[in-house]
Amino acid sequence: MLSKAAHQAIDIAKTIKVHQSDPLTPANILSARQGADAGNPFDMPAGVKLETVTTPQVKGEWYRLAKKSTTALMFLHGGAYMTGTVKSRRWLAVQLALKSGYETFSVDYRQYPEAQHPAAQNDVEAAYAYMRQHYSHVVVFGESAGASLALTLTLSLKDQHKPLPDKVSVFSPVISQLNLLTSEFTRQERDPMLLGAGDPVPYFKDPTSKSPLVSPIYGDYTNFPPLMINCGTEEVKYDDSVILNQLCQSAGVPVIFKAWQDLFHVFVLFDMPETQLVLQQIGDFLQVDVA
Amino acid sequence: MLSKAAHQAIDIAKTIKVHQSDPLTPANILSARQGADAGNPFDMPAGVKLETVTTPQVKGEWYRLAKKSTTALMFLHGGAYMTGTVKSRRWLAVQLALKSGYETFSVDYRQYPEAQHPAAQNDVEAAYAYMRQHYSHVVVFGESAGASLALTLTLSLKDQHKPLPDKVSVFSPVISQLNLLTSEFTRQERDPMLLGAGDPVPYFKDPTSKSPLVSPIYGDYTNFPPLMINCGTEEVKYDDSVILNQLCQSAGVPVIFKAWQDLFHVFVLFDMPETQLVLQQIGDFLQVDVA
Repeated sequence: MLSKAAHQAIDIAKTIKVHQSDPLTPANILSARQGADAGNPFDMPAGVKLETVTTPQVKGEWYRLAKKSTTALMFLHGGAYMTGTVKSRRWLAVQLALKSGYETFSVDYRQYPEAQHPAAQNDVEAAYAYMRQHYSHVVVFGESAGASLALTLTLSLKDQHKPLPDKVSVFSPVISQLNLLTSEFTRQERDPMLLGAGDPVPYFKDPTSKSPLVSPIYGDYTNFPPLMINCGTEEVKYDDSVILNQLCQSAGVPVIFKAWQDLFHVFVLFDMPETQLVLQQIGDFLQVDVA
Repeated sequence: MLSKAAHQAIDIAKTIKVHQSDPLTPANILSARQGADAGNPFDMPAGVKLETVTTPQVKGEWYRLAKKSTTALMFLHGGAYMTGTVKSRRWLAVQLALKSGYETFSVDYRQYPEAQHPAAQNDVEAAYAYMRQHYSHVVVFGESAGASLALTLTLSLKDQHKPLPDKVSVFSPVISQLNLLTSEFTRQERDPMLLGAGDPVPYFKDPTSKSPLVSPIYGDYTNFPPLMINCGTEEVKYDDSVILNQLCQSAGVPVIFKAWQDLFHVFVLFDMPETQLVLQQIGDFLQVDVA
């Protein structure tokens, strides 16, 4: 049975669904970002220090911890490559920093309408290179479009024969930009947040591309690092997780897939008992054996 | 439990899977057609008369019955818009003629490599117009790519405000040309006949098109005639049927969906007890009340 807080979160998710067919004008997108920031106020807890990075190549926020480690966590927010922000995900990123014990860098990557593919990919790859300059181990967490970027980052690094993240954790990943997987149709009523089977996000000029950096459903997962997939059973994007699990299992990747019964797309953004449980599991999974 | 004949059919289906990644050269395609014809010898039963139609607009075969009716059955064979033939499906078409009691016209539509979309669509629409000149009621059966054509024929007629078929029966339909629905991945091992998640068929120049005449997943099924969907549970194309059922149910279409446990893509092509059962059900469904 879901917690009372989860039921309240579902009610909030429903208000997102109502607005999901609003036209994607630049003004609406910027307004959605401002709304996300305003709707998620957050004070840094004691012991966590915010540090902003603004270089031409890398932008984002560090959530620094008192205890140092040789491993850092890269955090990739979602928002359909449009409406997400670093600021609105501070709570989640800091929770993961605290649960994992790793200093965490939340990447401020370029989105639509300011940019299109591969701008976000390039920004995330640059941020990864920057993190690797300072840490011998990097683990990655991404949610929704950020989960896609966690996958496309790792696939691209693999392709370039560069050092990979030690662990990758994706939450409600999107692996096909065409919004055509079966659950996009069969879960349209059940999903409280997303309409399903809609137009591709405008960030990709060619959403039909078979490039794995556009739709990681086309990726080769051989030698992919250990992967943890979490999602809700009621998502229109549920089958993205099912297929990603299948692709990784077939490729011999150590993959953990957990579908959270009766929960919805990126429910981890809501502070509730179910979220505390999944955050603990993600924090445990992300531990790197540096012995 | 499956019949012994069904287990034998599964063994035959496996020999198709082995050759499914053969290159689609014109020579290989023509050879597949010849193999289909040679592998399916069939003598017309007493009481059924074969009549060949070869006009510039319409090509195909009539299976004439002694008892006349005001309703005729259009039969649309499958074969990925490439490798199917009218001749190789004579057994099935005649079974449906006998079970329904309707004289049956099997359409010889153009395929790849001789032609590309919309040649088959045009041929099927011409055949439908021809049949309607002689019969006040037409019902349609299609299998695999022929099932797709049964859908695209009806969607196109609906769009043109022309008289629709009274009933449509599709067997193992394909509703998206991208081969991306979830079961294309999750049933790859289980499907004895099809590999799954392969390249689009070459008949379509632009398989990413959102035209409902390319991928009927994009169709508007409002006021679609009564539809019966049959498929096997072990198909990589299983979700095509699931989603078609969902689209029709949402649009208020009287739809019957039956997934045949443990059976495979177009198993109806094999003469076995399960096929006799489904043929009887299709024959019953196709009855038109002409009172």
